[in-house]
Amino acid sequence: MSLAGEIAEQPAVAERFLRERRDAVARIADRLAPRIAAGELDFVMIAARGTSDHAAIYAQYLFGAHLRLPIALAAPSLISLYGVEPRVERALVIGISQSGQSPDIVDSVAAARRQGAPTIAITNEPGSELAAAAEDVIDLGTGPELAVAATKTYTAQLLAVASLVTALEARIGRDAARDAELDAVPDALRDALKSEPQAEVVARHLASRDRVIVIGRGFEYATAREFALKLKELARVSADPYSTADFVHGPLALVEPGFPVIAVAPSGAAAADIDTLLVRLGELGVERIVLSDRPKAIAAATLGIAVPTGLPEWLMPIATIVPAQLVAMHLAIARGIDPEAPRWIRKVTLTR
Amino acid sequence: MSLAGEIAEQPAVAERFLRERRDAVARIADRLAPRIAAGELDFVMIAARGTSDHAAIYAQYLFGAHLRLPIALAAPSLISLYGVEPRVERALVIGISQSGQSPDIVDSVAAARRQGAPTIAITNEPGSELAAAAEDVIDLGTGPELAVAATKTYTAQLLAVASLVTALEARIGRDAARDAELDAVPDALRDALKSEPQAEVVARHLASRDRVIVIGRGFEYATAREFALKLKELARVSADPYSTADFVHGPLALVEPGFPVIAVAPSGAAAADIDTLLVRLGELGVERIVLSDRPKAIAAATLGIAVPTGLPEWLMPIATIVPAQLVAMHLAIARGIDPEAPRWIRKVTLTR
Repeated sequence: MSLAGEIAEQPAVAERFLRERRDAVARIADRLAPRIAAGELDFVMIAARGTSDHAAIYAQYLFGAHLRLPIALAAPSLISLYGVEPRVERALVIGISQSGQSPDIVDSVAAARRQGAPTIAITNEPGSELAAAAEDVIDLGTGPELAVAATKTYTAQLLAVASLVTALEARIGRDAARDAELDAVPDALRDALKSEPQAEVVARHLASRDRVIVIGRGFEYATAREFALKLKELARVSADPYSTADFVHGPLALVEPGFPVIAVAPSGAAAADIDTLLVRLGELGVERIVLSDRPKAIAAATLGIAVPTGLPEWLMPIATIVPAQLVAMHLAIARGIDPEAPRWIRKVTLTR
Repeated sequence: MSLAGEIAEQPAVAERFLRERRDAVARIADRLAPRIAAGELDFVMIAARGTSDHAAIYAQYLFGAHLRLPIALAAPSLISLYGVEPRVERALVIGISQSGQSPDIVDSVAAARRQGAPTIAITNEPGSELAAAAEDVIDLGTGPELAVAATKTYTAQLLAVASLVTALEARIGRDAARDAELDAVPDALRDALKSEPQAEVVARHLASRDRVIVIGRGFEYATAREFALKLKELARVSADPYSTADFVHGPLALVEPGFPVIAVAPSGAAAADIDTLLVRLGELGVERIVLSDRPKAIAAATLGIAVPTGLPEWLMPIATIVPAQLVAMHLAIARGIDPEAPRWIRKVTLTR
């Protein structure tokens, strides 16, 4: 299966996840929800690296916005380099890894379990060391991902996080209606794939550029980070991701007339903020490439990419990353690079 | 006072902080330590943006390594965009901001205080809104910082974090000896300033480059992040910071023969890991610019910058950032840019 094939497979992967994994997620939520409701668990710690770390950033916003739970992103080096295990007795600890093999992620989860914390592995390999280390496993079930650059496992990781948070919400009496909103994801992914011609136009436009900035805020900050990583590993473009708020603290000095800035700017609470920045960038002569479901935002852009309408803001990142994957793949091709074989890197990275 | 002047002032600023602020930090630690020892506080949440966020990353490693406390980096957008206040009743909440004016940082601290969490403002403006919002204030007392790019307030923030963690450690019976190690910081900063000729050589060497990668791990990950920000805001170079562990998960594909990689690689637990990566990068023909106190690491580099010897690993980031500031300043000059006046950005950024 090629990278292009794995990108195209994402609607079917999401459909299968929702059909086959909801019961397992519900059982995990059944046990965790009373402990969260009783205040026994104060925060969530997530251990992840690379693309999986971007799923962790999505989780940071979703656990925060829907469950008021703060997220600590683990610094696995604390264990692997300094031999210190952070105290996580009162945390829910989640390890996210496609392969389930990264020793430092496995160690973080194993240390948490020894301390008595509830632990969950979100992985595509239910037979992996990570799955064995954790008390519970959410198996992504995407089938083998063979391309070096992760695509379908990323959207499946986001969906796993969304399913878990939604199941917890329903059980602690916050909002049971959101569970039904998950069902819209596979169709939104199908719609997102229709952006391919626009993604190709953007890729051809960017073919000669070595530098680009990618902006997102709130739930879409995760998308900006993952978009930038895909541009780096597939198309060898120095892509720098920012939340709008951090971007104006310094890195704004980097842009100049003609510099390309990509904004992930669908409907939602973050839209007004990004639009204000885009106006300012327009005044500076900066090129603005905008992913949005809002025709007005697309119209104001140098180049636009339409993303699916109809998803609530909290689920939108599962769809907005699809045109990003397509831009990165086509940009690699436009730059004469084989997107199936990024140089120097391997599919499984055994960091310690 | 110019940027160059503020960089040069750092030893005196550190000396003054240690002389005048230790008592205030000790009083805060007197009240917090029993609550940490009793397990009443489970984690630390830090709200910060821009340069201050890099002080937060340093805090993440230091609170973890010396107190086993996990750090959640606040997503201030949760409050400002989504109107949700994360539950932090059992957290120590710290806001870090030079100006103390960022509304989203002030809101994060104010929300935590309303929930009854202990709150600390680390700021250079004791009369600021952030200082008023927090229960306790650590006043950096650096004197006015007029250059847009933060330098002396960053090293003072790191020293404030180091002082707080050290004072807490001494009170919960972990390690009282570390307090004396802080006294070596001003002299180390003086030594670090002596790297200026080497920093100028590196700056001239990099003058024509638009892209660079900066690598650090463990405690020095904060330095890599702040180094990259300084290169962006002062010298308009697309500088991408990574921990070695994340770098090999994808971004490694970006480098090619002649591509410049800067490694912050002093003695310590992370050194072996960075050295292994540097050997691999050397085999790929990548240029390696290395900041280190280890003659062997300098000898193996394309260009080296000596950093002070004699500081323990956990304090080294206060010194290693100094040659980084000098490289960024001289690189701006070498590229014909006025480092005193980065374009587009302002000293105080009022993000919401």
